[in-house]
Amino acid sequence: MAKIDLNCDLGESFAHYTLGLDDEVIPYISSANIACGFHASDPVNMKKTMALAKKHGVACGAHPGFPDLLGFGRRNMAVTPLEAKAYTQYQLGALYAFCRAEGVALKHVKPHGALYNMAGKDYALARAICEGVQEFDRELILLALSGSEMVRAAKDIGLPVAREVFADRAYEEDGSLVARSKEGSMITDEKLAIQRVIRMVKEGRVETITGRDIAIQADSVCVHGDNVKALAFVQQIHSALSSEGIEISPLEAVI
Amino acid sequence: MAKIDLNCDLGESFAHYTLGLDDEVIPYISSANIACGFHASDPVNMKKTMALAKKHGVACGAHPGFPDLLGFGRRNMAVTPLEAKAYTQYQLGALYAFCRAEGVALKHVKPHGALYNMAGKDYALARAICEGVQEFDRELILLALSGSEMVRAAKDIGLPVAREVFADRAYEEDGSLVARSKEGSMITDEKLAIQRVIRMVKEGRVETITGRDIAIQADSVCVHGDNVKALAFVQQIHSALSSEGIEISPLEAVI
Amino acid sequence: MAKIDLNCDLGESFAHYTLGLDDEVIPYISSANIACGFHASDPVNMKKTMALAKKHGVACGAHPGFPDLLGFGRRNMAVTPLEAKAYTQYQLGALYAFCRAEGVALKHVKPHGALYNMAGKDYALARAICEGVQEFDRELILLALSGSEMVRAAKDIGLPVAREVFADRAYEEDGSLVARSKEGSMITDEKLAIQRVIRMVKEGRVETITGRDIAIQADSVCVHGDNVKALAFVQQIHSALSSEGIEISPLEAVI
Amino acid sequence: MAKIDLNCDLGESFAHYTLGLDDEVIPYISSANIACGFHASDPVNMKKTMALAKKHGVACGAHPGFPDLLGFGRRNMAVTPLEAKAYTQYQLGALYAFCRAEGVALKHVKPHGALYNMAGKDYALARAICEGVQEFDRELILLALSGSEMVRAAKDIGLPVAREVFADRAYEEDGSLVARSKEGSMITDEKLAIQRVIRMVKEGRVETITGRDIAIQADSVCVHGDNVKALAFVQQIHSALSSEGIEISPLEAVI
Repeated sequence: MAKIDLNCDLGESFAHYTLGLDDEVIPYISSANIACGFHASDPVNMKKTMALAKKHGVACGAHPGFPDLLGFGRRNMAVTPLEAKAYTQYQLGALYAFCRAEGVALKHVKPHGALYNMAGKDYALARAICEGVQEFDRELILLALSGSEMVRAAKDIGLPVAREVFADRAYEEDGSLVARSKEGSMITDEKLAIQRVIRMVKEGRVETITGRDIAIQADSVCVHGDNVKALAFVQQIHSALSSEGIEISPLEAVI
Repeated sequence: MAKIDLNCDLGESFAHYTLGLDDEVIPYISSANIACGFHASDPVNMKKTMALAKKHGVACGAHPGFPDLLGFGRRNMAVTPLEAKAYTQYQLGALYAFCRAEGVALKHVKPHGALYNMAGKDYALARAICEGVQEFDRELILLALSGSEMVRAAKDIGLPVAREVFADRAYEEDGSLVARSKEGSMITDEKLAIQRVIRMVKEGRVETITGRDIAIQADSVCVHGDNVKALAFVQQIHSALSSEGIEISPLEAVI
Repeated sequence: MAKIDLNCDLGESFAHYTLGLDDEVIPYISSANIACGFHASDPVNMKKTMALAKKHGVACGAHPGFPDLLGFGRRNMAVTPLEAKAYTQYQLGALYAFCRAEGVALKHVKPHGALYNMAGKDYALARAICEGVQEFDRELILLALSGSEMVRAAKDIGLPVAREVFADRAYEEDGSLVARSKEGSMITDEKLAIQRVIRMVKEGRVETITGRDIAIQADSVCVHGDNVKALAFVQQIHSALSSEGIEISPLEAVI
Repeated sequence: MAKIDLNCDLGESFAHYTLGLDDEVIPYISSANIACGFHASDPVNMKKTMALAKKHGVACGAHPGFPDLLGFGRRNMAVTPLEAKAYTQYQLGALYAFCRAEGVALKHVKPHGALYNMAGKDYALARAICEGVQEFDRELILLALSGSEMVRAAKDIGLPVAREVFADRAYEEDGSLVARSKEGSMITDEKLAIQRVIRMVKEGRVETITGRDIAIQADSVCVHGDNVKALAFVQQIHSALSSEGIEISPLEAVI
């Protein structure tokens, strides 16, 4: 039976500030990427989010980001590979403490925002992050952009890796995402977006922005719980995948 | 054979700022309390400090503090027990990541500065910290002020605990430290300080500021590596204890 | 004609996190206390808030707090008077930069949360804050709890001061606020709350929790724009004061 | 009479961490660039540094940096021009508060580290910073790399600007600094370094790394007080300039 993981960033509230419809989106996903206090969240919110994830039985992963609360971890920062590795390990461990406290397994790691984007293109950075994860626990799964340098680095060192695809983004012929600044980069037709995901899962293929067909490996689809519209889309994609006989399963069951 | 642990706060450098004579003091101690990024240190310095501790074979512990870099964790903060617990777990996990990366065991936890002082007198806070540690790893040893609420809370929940004494501080008849503001609170004569420690270890007794003799349990002595003078004292106390046939041993061998 | 200022904390959003109904509440108030980046807000949000305040013509004040984003500045911190003074001046200057950039006058300073509460009871802290404000600009108005140590300290050094009252809080016979933990501390009947404010303004008197009548000086009423209910109350009190012929005016017109 | 300013970064201590030989270097400089709490320093240290600058009568300037304590402001961050402007204004105002408290004039602004480097090459960023400074005070002097985009942006909007040169760096034919990664980028011979500065001031010319002679405008030389060797160099250059009849003067007397 075809399988796919649905992953969503959770636990992005910070101090007295609330962000995201965590309670509403969590029944529809199989993996939660939980913020670790560098770009969002804090110890108290991490504890709460871990309890929520436990209650719903979703697989938990760390979502480490740049130490940039002001920019929500979305701004590129010229960190060294050594710094990226240490930042990843620190956040991984911090989240792991709440896993242990709640009796929940830590399953994966997905770098956040600018760290995800930079490491997707920079092998040295990607490699440092992968080594950081592996030194902590060699069975953790790296969740990374399909076709990226992170996938390559993980494979090179033998770290389990799951390949992430995006329902709402167009692809270039080389499998990379079309830059947001380019026309046609976003798939705004939700039905089309869902059909594309179904085809990625079932056939392992996607039509690029140029109209050509390419191979793509899809282990997980990134969804969002930021607002009511995003939430409605998660419900739709969840329902469409099920109708197609695609099982929504955590990463370890997919890869 | 009589045994005592010598513990010292290490890894208090932050970013480009250097603090403490870590390299010089580490050969003389048996346990290192490593700062975890809230009141001092950062991921890169934690990684370095862990490597140093590994090289010298000292027992590693987490040294969690208040989220107060500006005050070096030395200012009382009115946190709730829930916050104290979450802050402790976060920092514990963060340090543990570097333990795992370096292949070093995490042995103990010693709260830092104002958190240590407040929890020493506030049972609810102490209990929350102890539960936080126990939820993470029930074999970790809490290192806490001899006679304090932290020792009591640890015993109440069955968390291993080591009792810390101070060479340079006077004691009240109830076993508490004489407040720094009071005359005679500091033992400035280094020879006397060392003799007092030896007696605490061998006889389990100390003379109070009032001249009475009381029982005291000493599992570990707190030493400092902040400056050249402090370092010289560590060397002296190390040498004096050895001459007296007292073995300097990590906490797990003492308690 | 009787006058009163209505003041509200604004600009408490932080980074990508939104807080408060600033756009909705601002038409009903005469003074805005703008967060300065220590307990809430950041440079970009301060710039936006200043532009909003300018557009609506409300008087602008700095709202400095403790350096405690995690606790939203609501947790007591054992800072020294020197630290409190320096923190106040730093935040005051930071906000002043946006005043100058927008061509808006800086009119007042109201300490936030735990800093407000602590300085209200601790003369040394209050005095340090007042001196910090006065060294920056001797014409700035301190907005402080009526009857507090801050009012006393401001008067002692000749700093202009406005006395703040609360519509929803009960008063003790000595003019202090009834502690929140005590039964009857909150005035939940909104009509009664408004009547009490009108009497404070017109007669300078309020009935205490014990039923006695005491004198109270009311230059400004603190209102909130945190949620829809709070907003509705601001509209009601604004309308009720106007009906009673009480002019809602900025602090400098009231004191 | 030929004139040159000697500027040095001061006040880079943070919390309990001490950095730089501020007391020793200050007698030899004419302008101090004072850290503002984003990449280094804090309110208490800013207050102390301002008092030191006042005592020695050096001209005070703000030294705003990226919000990156962990990286000491030396890591490139992909901020928007709007963010750079707001960060500059915030820090400018914060430092200005201590100027006002101490009765010292604020004379200039020199961006720090990565912000200085990025704005030196990125006109939009440079322009935003210049506008931020000008909105605060149109008479403040921007201190910027000679020949950089910051100088161009300042001139375009009519902001006073002083051009900074480096004694220990080689120059390309287009007047830019030779990248540190390139051989020969550093002038390690201190006598040669000083001779080069003297020639820049007196003749307005410097020999490039290729051996050609180019025109260069030198209003200020950047010196350092980080360590004993740097301090000795400051003393030498101060003495050599005086012997050559070049007056060491603050920026406003030079430009």
